[in-house]
Amino acid sequence: MGRCINHPDIETNYLCMKHQIHLCEDCLECRDPDLYCKFRSSCPIHFISLKGFDEKPEEKESETVSVVFQPGGNSVTLPKGGNLLEAAQKADVYVNASCNGSGSCGKCKLIIESGSFETGDTGLLSPVEKERGVVLACQVEVKNDLAVRIPEETLEKKLRAEGMGNEATQKLMGLVREMDPIVKKYILTLDVPSLDDTVSDLDRLKRSLKRNGCDIFSMSTDLGVMRQLTRSVREDNWQVIASVLQKKCSTQIVDVRPANQALRSLGMAVDLGTTSIVVYIVDMETGEILSAASGHNRQAACGDDVINRIVCSEKEGIKKLKKMALSTINNLTERALIPLEETHRQIENIVVSGNTTMVHLLLGIEAKYIRREPYIPTVSEFPVIQAAHVGLKAARYAGVFVMPGPAGYVGGDIVSGILYTGMHRSNNLTLFIDVGTNGEIVLGNDEFMMTAACSAGPAFEGGGIRWGMRAETGAMEKIFLDPARFDPEYETVDSKPARGICGSGMIDLMSEMMVKGVVGQDGKFRLDSRHPRMTVFNDEPAFILEFAENTDMKEDIIFTESDIRSLTLSKAAVYAGFTVLIEKIGMDFSMVRQMIITGGFGQFLDIEKAVSIGLLPDIDRKKFKYMGNSSIAGAYMALLSGKFRQEAIDISNRMTYVDFSSSTRFMDEFTKAQFLPHTDSRLFPSVKILQPQH
Amino acid sequence: MGRCINHPDIETNYLCMKHQIHLCEDCLECRDPDLYCKFRSSCPIHFISLKGFDEKPEEKESETVSVVFQPGGNSVTLPKGGNLLEAAQKADVYVNASCNGSGSCGKCKLIIESGSFETGDTGLLSPVEKERGVVLACQVEVKNDLAVRIPEETLEKKLRAEGMGNEATQKLMGLVREMDPIVKKYILTLDVPSLDDTVSDLDRLKRSLKRNGCDIFSMSTDLGVMRQLTRSVREDNWQVIASVLQKKCSTQIVDVRPANQALRSLGMAVDLGTTSIVVYIVDMETGEILSAASGHNRQAACGDDVINRIVCSEKEGIKKLKKMALSTINNLTERALIPLEETHRQIENIVVSGNTTMVHLLLGIEAKYIRREPYIPTVSEFPVIQAAHVGLKAARYAGVFVMPGPAGYVGGDIVSGILYTGMHRSNNLTLFIDVGTNGEIVLGNDEFMMTAACSAGPAFEGGGIRWGMRAETGAMEKIFLDPARFDPEYETVDSKPARGICGSGMIDLMSEMMVKGVVGQDGKFRLDSRHPRMTVFNDEPAFILEFAENTDMKEDIIFTESDIRSLTLSKAAVYAGFTVLIEKIGMDFSMVRQMIITGGFGQFLDIEKAVSIGLLPDIDRKKFKYMGNSSIAGAYMALLSGKFRQEAIDISNRMTYVDFSSSTRFMDEFTKAQFLPHTDSRLFPSVKILQPQH
Repeated sequence: MGRCINHPDIETNYLCMKHQIHLCEDCLECRDPDLYCKFRSSCPIHFISLKGFDEKPEEKESETVSVVFQPGGNSVTLPKGGNLLEAAQKADVYVNASCNGSGSCGKCKLIIESGSFETGDTGLLSPVEKERGVVLACQVEVKNDLAVRIPEETLEKKLRAEGMGNEATQKLMGLVREMDPIVKKYILTLDVPSLDDTVSDLDRLKRSLKRNGCDIFSMSTDLGVMRQLTRSVREDNWQVIASVLQKKCSTQIVDVRPANQALRSLGMAVDLGTTSIVVYIVDMETGEILSAASGHNRQAACGDDVINRIVCSEKEGIKKLKKMALSTINNLTERALIPLEETHRQIENIVVSGNTTMVHLLLGIEAKYIRREPYIPTVSEFPVIQAAHVGLKAARYAGVFVMPGPAGYVGGDIVSGILYTGMHRSNNLTLFIDVGTNGEIVLGNDEFMMTAACSAGPAFEGGGIRWGMRAETGAMEKIFLDPARFDPEYETVDSKPARGICGSGMIDLMSEMMVKGVVGQDGKFRLDSRHPRMTVFNDEPAFILEFAENTDMKEDIIFTESDIRSLTLSKAAVYAGFTVLIEKIGMDFSMVRQMIITGGFGQFLDIEKAVSIGLLPDIDRKKFKYMGNSSIAGAYMALLSGKFRQEAIDISNRMTYVDFSSSTRFMDEFTKAQFLPHTDSRLFPSVKILQPQH
Repeated sequence: MGRCINHPDIETNYLCMKHQIHLCEDCLECRDPDLYCKFRSSCPIHFISLKGFDEKPEEKESETVSVVFQPGGNSVTLPKGGNLLEAAQKADVYVNASCNGSGSCGKCKLIIESGSFETGDTGLLSPVEKERGVVLACQVEVKNDLAVRIPEETLEKKLRAEGMGNEATQKLMGLVREMDPIVKKYILTLDVPSLDDTVSDLDRLKRSLKRNGCDIFSMSTDLGVMRQLTRSVREDNWQVIASVLQKKCSTQIVDVRPANQALRSLGMAVDLGTTSIVVYIVDMETGEILSAASGHNRQAACGDDVINRIVCSEKEGIKKLKKMALSTINNLTERALIPLEETHRQIENIVVSGNTTMVHLLLGIEAKYIRREPYIPTVSEFPVIQAAHVGLKAARYAGVFVMPGPAGYVGGDIVSGILYTGMHRSNNLTLFIDVGTNGEIVLGNDEFMMTAACSAGPAFEGGGIRWGMRAETGAMEKIFLDPARFDPEYETVDSKPARGICGSGMIDLMSEMMVKGVVGQDGKFRLDSRHPRMTVFNDEPAFILEFAENTDMKEDIIFTESDIRSLTLSKAAVYAGFTVLIEKIGMDFSMVRQMIITGGFGQFLDIEKAVSIGLLPDIDRKKFKYMGNSSIAGAYMALLSGKFRQEAIDISNRMTYVDFSSSTRFMDEFTKAQFLPHTDSRLFPSVKILQPQH
């Protein structure tokens, strides 16, 4: 990347290798001698496009080493002394790095099979791991060529929950009756021109569109369409298919092709999560969900939560984060298309639902003020954008609708969820919670909606928990403790050997340990340290959930006091959020008619146990409703219907955001909730603690 | 140019020099391993952009020679055996080639100073010229390195009439009262955000725009603006200048910058003629015309008239023609900006007025069906386009309004002219004629407007006339013949030695020769062939207008019987057009209340003489009004006012096009008018022919 020698305000990727000067595209394209001839005419061939290889030229100058990653065989060269985590990112190898390379999370484990390197000492690796040759990639300085193996626990696993599951999908498809896509298609038979009817090709097309009920007054036309138009209208004897992009107050002809070149029109709904991304491919005629795919957001290499991502974007540029998100989505798109035998150029409609930071970064929009008081996003309501401008793999002209978000910490994913739950149309007072890193809460009905974010942290998604993980293969998702010996009985995702614990598993475990007296209500272990299930890790007592011989990695899966503390803080933040928001409108929990829970718990969230640890309020259990991934569901609805797109905008505009960051009430309640289930046990009358039998 | 290996339907300029495969920009940009890694990761550096050098790679393989052009020193390499005219085009040397290289017009004269070449014989060069080493570039095959001189008569001359002249400009500036540009600027003071006011940057901006009277409901925002927005709003403490593009039914925020980075906002009016192009630079606050420039359309190298240009675009691609027009305009823009010390990035508003073919080619839109029955243009009414998409040198986001044109042969330049004359608002029946290659006529008033094109040919612009030229330096523009000896007295543009004859000069000469008996009413010479002013050229009698010793090129300037014939055909076509159009509405010339003449005659059009040769009808001379370059004048008006832009669209929609190409009435009238002034002398009662005295 450099600046054009003629236009210093334009950044450009075109570099003349001979003269080492940059020219912008205008200068390369144009034949104006003043701009062009000075350098280009003498050495046109030397102008190379550096798009996508911004860093290459510098590297050439220093001594380089190469790193090969197995399995996969991805290789990359980097300057001698470079960082191994950065090398992995550059080689497009998925490595989770919750702490963005600061060396504190211990997730970026790799095994070095050959080659020399330097690394510091870390307490985050067990002796067993060190023996296996495991290193933390972020702590490794590469000294010469390396052969690296990605260990089982670091390898990207397919997420189990690809969207909503079959049954939910069937229900979802029943929700939208009238199809009204972003890009509407019209099959037209144009009048054949004659000396008595000499209007231009474009006017002829518009006349036919008008006859088909299209408002042509506010219609514009892409220059690219005009450039192809003569051919398009004549190739199939004046039979054409026109694609018209619907914007807020205007329409735009974005594609015209001969009718005999018709292809099935597809749509794509994207749930752009901080941790994982889900993609649905939809038939835009029938509304059928044809295929789905989900995977980890590659931005994970830059930290677990939105704050780390923003910090990374400030340090290393938004473009890096944008490319990571795009690469994840585009990979998933391709993966979802494989069974369909359709191409991405058939995707003409896209709806993206994500939190405010995620959509900013995807679009390459600065997010830095989201993390600075008063937490201002750059954009709340996005105009419809064309896919080529975003970089999404789809028809170049595909319309992209981005779910609007009311605040920096309450984004389009929540709006999407509300749209799906329909609480904005119901007169029942509803409490909505999306348990994720951020813990967004919405309280309201068809008359008002208040929203807040309570910084729950990533514990329920496995972040900051020694053996925490998402609901992937091998995750313990349902746990029961034998009341006598405290031996766990558990189920794992895909019934594979245990690899860690996911959100619902942690809630089960916490509840079981507390109710059965393994830990006290203060979160400290009560079990005798000589109990066979007890051990010590990093000077802390820890409970052995599964012994090494029965696990995937042949290591003990443990749950430490720090893990309990992290989880307690998370649940306390959520509960404090509920309390303060309800208080704001002068009500109490008894007045809540329904409580909707969404988020990535997987299908085994045990409401009873969630209440018992004080995550959810102790109200009538019939009021609880777990609705799965509501973000993708709302995105799907908006994909098919303009009415729902408008409803999403209305929801976002109707929401009143309450800021907790400077609220002393919230801090008070947060402190009180840091007990199991709560310091005020009267709030949880139904929770019974068994007396320890030891 | 090649096709992307992943996306065979996408043409791309990115070629891997090592693997000899192409990738499109998407593939280069994207990090999707399926698209990207296969070739790019192993050799990113080999991908070069071939933009603008489409032909280079092939040339590399064959033996090349180089040609240097003086003055200027432009040089170019081409394959041995290549054509010299193409070499000149590639070297960006202006060479007129009316016949598009077919060897029939004799305009592309160059002098070869050294080097070997092959050329055929031609009757279009005089012995004197051959002696000077003059060749016709289109007939030359380059055998090895050549040094070429561009002779005086081929060198590009500055057109005299840069627009309208001072007085007309002053008048013009008085026509627009309310400024209403395409891109409106708003100087705004945004509210500083706080915890009580946390709306996004974009909503904050829109709120302020709304307070300033801007309709924000239908407003969209460029992704590029959103990407810069955080910085733009904060850099000058929430003081910004926002640029809002006005479209038909919506608006678009296209630029936001800190208020302390304000620059004077400029506009540009462009008269895009087939032969010459005029550019005005306008202050968008005051409406003052700051500067003007005019020059020859570089497309002249592809032929004189629109038909030749279309043929060329079909053979060699529209891109070539597009680049030629862009290069001319962009050069003129730079030239016009020099005295102002402003940059092209300040140009935020552009109006282009040109005939239908010219604007199609400028925008890269197929024009081929304009020349095929039933003569259908691709587009009549153009949406507002951004300058970067067109390739015009201006702010990337500048709004480009292209004057709409009602038919393939009546374009936006005529609509622009009507707008300027105001005949669409007057109840006086008006006859409007733009004398140029095409000879467009409009008849009408505030109730109706009929229009037609009468294929006058380029004679009045110097095309097809041995010594014909535009009103440039040295052109004889006013000619009087001594009634006794027929010695011409003449005035030339800039009072320089004679170089040829322009339109008004030809009309003078024809009239003088006819009235004074040098030629008969049949267009044949009556003068004795031994008269000192008579000579023979290509077996035809010719009149010597000036002897070699008094001319710039030291050659006789002559006027041949073929020249008379060409001019007679042109004037006959125009007159027949008038007749048929008036007849269509059941009227006659006496009912015409005013007759407006526009076109490139220069300032000396002698109405009396134009009537005497039968170009204009023999009506009350007070009804005639010569209005100069009305195309640029209308473009200027539309540049400043949305009301006038809308009026232009209305004018175009109101015009009824009459096709003469298959009209037997027109052919009859055309035949009758091929006499001086007309076969029916009763139509020209005021024209008196003197009896020859020889």
